Amino acid sequence: MAYQGGYPQQYGAGGGGGGYAQHPAAAYGGGYGGYAPPPQQPPVSPEIQNIFRNIDKDNTGRINNRELQQALINGRGDHFSDTACNLMINMFDRNKSGTVDIYDFERLYNYINQWLQVFKNFDRDASGHIEENELTQALTQMGFRFSPAFIQFLITKNDPINRKEISVDQFIVTCIQIQRFTDTFRVRDTEQKGVITITFEDFLGIALSMCS
Amino acid sequence: MAYQGGYPQQYGAGGGGGGYAQHPAAAYGGGYGGYAPPPQQPPVSPEIQNIFRNIDKDNTGRINNRELQQALINGRGDHFSDTACNLMINMFDRNKSGTVDIYDFERLYNYINQWLQVFKNFDRDASGHIEENELTQALTQMGFRFSPAFIQFLITKNDPINRKEISVDQFIVTCIQIQRFTDTFRVRDTEQKGVITITFEDFLGIALSMCS
Repeated sequence: MAYQGGYPQQYGAGGGGGGYAQHPAAAYGGGYGGYAPPPQQPPVSPEIQNIFRNIDKDNTGRINNRELQQALINGRGDHFSDTACNLMINMFDRNKSGTVDIYDFERLYNYINQWLQVFKNFDRDASGHIEENELTQALTQMGFRFSPAFIQFLITKNDPINRKEISVDQFIVTCIQIQRFTDTFRVRDTEQKGVITITFEDFLGIALSMCS
Repeated sequence: MAYQGGYPQQYGAGGGGGGYAQHPAAAYGGGYGGYAPPPQQPPVSPEIQNIFRNIDKDNTGRINNRELQQALINGRGDHFSDTACNLMINMFDRNKSGTVDIYDFERLYNYINQWLQVFKNFDRDASGHIEENELTQALTQMGFRFSPAFIQFLITKNDPINRKEISVDQFIVTCIQIQRFTDTFRVRDTEQKGVITITFEDFLGIALSMCS
């Protein structure tokens, strides 16, 4: 009831307290939507150039989902999921080709690293996974106030075989999706009551827009 | 207002008029959710065995997303999307491994063929794609009553480069997602007004459940 129905007022705005300014939400806000390339591309660092060349196995000058997946390994030794790579590529892919060039990649690379840093901060036992209490802390620090049942749902959704933990790529996807859905909800929750009234067509439109 | 807020009363129940009984929604209703294998598997036809062997390139006895993608081509000559193959495999994958065995595959195969038949029926000019007026007719016959703006949104979502048409795999994904979201909406729309009131956490839960 109080506290904007469980979601943070300023989330994604890049300001505010609680470790906020450094959160990838800031990069997210910039990279997704009205992202415009600078008139003149700044030079890409030699480090990024090297990484890009190593990932761009077919030397097309663009990195696709599969190449990114091959390059990213989570704490279980598995490649990042299709969903995670698709989601992130689509955020930085300026020409909507499903691939990123070296300039897109530089931003994508920085974005992933920011998320990895967030993940490490919350993975307090350095297990390489986020457990229930760590996820609760992470979301609370991001400004959300979810019920224990909802946190449990997030874990179970990501971990059907009951390991009770989520991997770094699942954590990134979960956080990005929560951010997006929160933004979508908030614009309709004009009185900030945490409750909205929605028509069938609007509901379908939101749901279909959010799913790839 | 009338007509259950734009969505069909019996959709997915497998009964009713308007070409309903033969619609894949019936198979969908059976395959998704409470799908239980028969105590003794019935024999798989030689035709399906042959098709299965051809698709199962690595001879693991299970077909994964990539193998299914390789086997399915849409009217543009492109492989079915990741999303389409994931969605369909997940509907028939009894052990939640992200792959289907030959028994799962037989049902999946029949299900895809039912959808292909539906698609052909609505692709009246046999272009291999569904255009706006054909999509309107298809959804109307399925019992939905969407605004022209919503149909336009469905086309644009699937066709960002403005070909104003959707492919067969996009059609299947769109219909399955609309079915799922409609079911989700309907259980909350107890008075069948086409409008629901929903809390932030419920909204998030629905949205996250529906997105892979």
